[in-house]
Amino acid sequence: MSKVFSAQPAAASGDILHNDLLLRVARGEPTDRPPVWLMRQAGRILPQYRALRSNFQDFKTFVKTPEAAAEATVQPVDELGVDAAIIFSDILVVPEAMGLNYEMIEAKGPRFPEVIEKKADVDALISGENAAERLYYVFEALRLSKQILAGRVPLIGFAGAPWTILAYMVEGSGSKTFSRARRLLYAEPALAHNLLQKITDTTIAYLQRQVAAGANLLQLFDSWAGELPPAHYRTFAVPYLQQICEALPDVPKTVFAKGAWFALEDLGELPCEVIGLDWNIPPAFARARTGESKALQGNLDPCTLYADEKTIADETNEMLRQFGRRHIANLGHGVYPDTPLEGVKVFVETVKKWNYGKQV
Amino acid sequence: MSKVFSAQPAAASGDILHNDLLLRVARGEPTDRPPVWLMRQAGRILPQYRALRSNFQDFKTFVKTPEAAAEATVQPVDELGVDAAIIFSDILVVPEAMGLNYEMIEAKGPRFPEVIEKKADVDALISGENAAERLYYVFEALRLSKQILAGRVPLIGFAGAPWTILAYMVEGSGSKTFSRARRLLYAEPALAHNLLQKITDTTIAYLQRQVAAGANLLQLFDSWAGELPPAHYRTFAVPYLQQICEALPDVPKTVFAKGAWFALEDLGELPCEVIGLDWNIPPAFARARTGESKALQGNLDPCTLYADEKTIADETNEMLRQFGRRHIANLGHGVYPDTPLEGVKVFVETVKKWNYGKQV
Repeated sequence: MSKVFSAQPAAASGDILHNDLLLRVARGEPTDRPPVWLMRQAGRILPQYRALRSNFQDFKTFVKTPEAAAEATVQPVDELGVDAAIIFSDILVVPEAMGLNYEMIEAKGPRFPEVIEKKADVDALISGENAAERLYYVFEALRLSKQILAGRVPLIGFAGAPWTILAYMVEGSGSKTFSRARRLLYAEPALAHNLLQKITDTTIAYLQRQVAAGANLLQLFDSWAGELPPAHYRTFAVPYLQQICEALPDVPKTVFAKGAWFALEDLGELPCEVIGLDWNIPPAFARARTGESKALQGNLDPCTLYADEKTIADETNEMLRQFGRRHIANLGHGVYPDTPLEGVKVFVETVKKWNYGKQV
Repeated sequence: MSKVFSAQPAAASGDILHNDLLLRVARGEPTDRPPVWLMRQAGRILPQYRALRSNFQDFKTFVKTPEAAAEATVQPVDELGVDAAIIFSDILVVPEAMGLNYEMIEAKGPRFPEVIEKKADVDALISGENAAERLYYVFEALRLSKQILAGRVPLIGFAGAPWTILAYMVEGSGSKTFSRARRLLYAEPALAHNLLQKITDTTIAYLQRQVAAGANLLQLFDSWAGELPPAHYRTFAVPYLQQICEALPDVPKTVFAKGAWFALEDLGELPCEVIGLDWNIPPAFARARTGESKALQGNLDPCTLYADEKTIADETNEMLRQFGRRHIANLGHGVYPDTPLEGVKVFVETVKKWNYGKQV
């Protein structure tokens, strides 16, 4: 794996990492402690992010300005001392590149004025390379982030998983039940597969270009995985995750399927290196189902970081103890925007004090 | 169990049921087929409900008019031929009775203008008998429903589980993350327990009065169970469910903890008769964890009812096959308001054609 990995474009162009803990755990190599980063670490928890954000009227302009996105990407490495950066972007840039514009409504979330309803809507979508090349601003942000990071930590690229992107494209927003998107799977399965394939083709082209621009690891976010019954997850989600993982053999990949406790055996068989876990899944439950070959990432309850420092440290240590080795410390969900910065720092510092040799 | 059950007030006052399938399965007695009903069967899927609802400007006036609530309760028995009625009401009448008014905003859901933030807010709440007696309109609706049903099928009473009611009282509405409510559990656990106990005391008094008014079975809805990490569910949810179940020994009880797949062993030890399952939980997974002593209720994906008739029948039969005996057929969540009535009818009729003797 290490040899294959070194053949990736970024590595070939002199990508020497001073801290490669994340990649070593992904590859199954021994480390003294787990690496630590937080989903949504680039964002509102940081005062320097809020200052940067205030220069932009709207979220989308911010995301599309590579210099700003790169600065937001690197901020948590400077402020929190985390072991990885993740590119500042949004999973919804993919449906947008496919031809479905969205609005980001402050404190409410995304909204698509037009949604996918019928075959003609799917036929009209751009996909694959043609869609991916519209995301040049993400690739530029990755390149700039790499420059600023100068090898301090690995840079994570990401995309939404096809089922989750379909859900947004059909619902037009988040949803309490996702009944419109899920209805499509029952009522028009062929159309659903057609749409999932277009999203998959686009996602593959998008992620390949992220790797070319310097991403050291890729994460797929299947945020609405837990909405599907097990049989549907196996039919409408897993095969597309499989395609994406197979198309990107030269870089480690993390699949985070929130709520998909019932699919851990299937996820364990994907050609990926890391499985992300939400805060409901006991580490031993996941390890028993995914087998020994994957790294596990997660899964502290994000609300833990509202507690006092001792509770945060105790709960973090208990999580580290339960996971044992081959673990990437993280929360079980994105950090909530109103989380106290001090709580985040206690979490990061507690992980960085861990030492497998001393604990065992 | 049968003997104890016959001692309940409604039974003592001549409550002879022509169809007691639901209660027989709850008690563990043999039946030829599973009983069937749907969560949220009294509601927008029925044209006669929409006609009745149009007489009221707002939802809350409707809920508080016993004659109308009783009519809505009985409509699905007439129209769908289900094996149980469930009282038409809302879980949020309990926080309202405790002193926290809510508004029901059409197509958006509930909103509490004032929420619980600090000790003084909890101290100011009414609880127990004093709160429960404010819900006289529910008890009157139960009595009227029993009269109209005239023993055709059992009548189900219900309440929200304490954690779910706390979540609404602290959040003020539904939430994507429930981070305010969950923050309270980390930041002020003593206050959370204090609030949960007040909700529990009220719920017990409320459900005892529902039984006195004729409820034949009680269901506890823990709609936000899946938001809690396993350790918190065990600390902040299960003990209060235990108290409620213990306080109502003379009537069968169903606990439906949506998303709490990780707590099935704990739920299996509650002194209740039925465990409700959402559509993510494979029947065999639940049976292995709850043991043999409970009836299981559920768990067809509500979105199945958007499919064609053959798919609905096939999926329903497959579900019945997987559950086997000691099963109450239902969806894995409330029926969605836009579900085609024909789909609902195919589901009900498919269950009613099932025959354990012939299938095995």
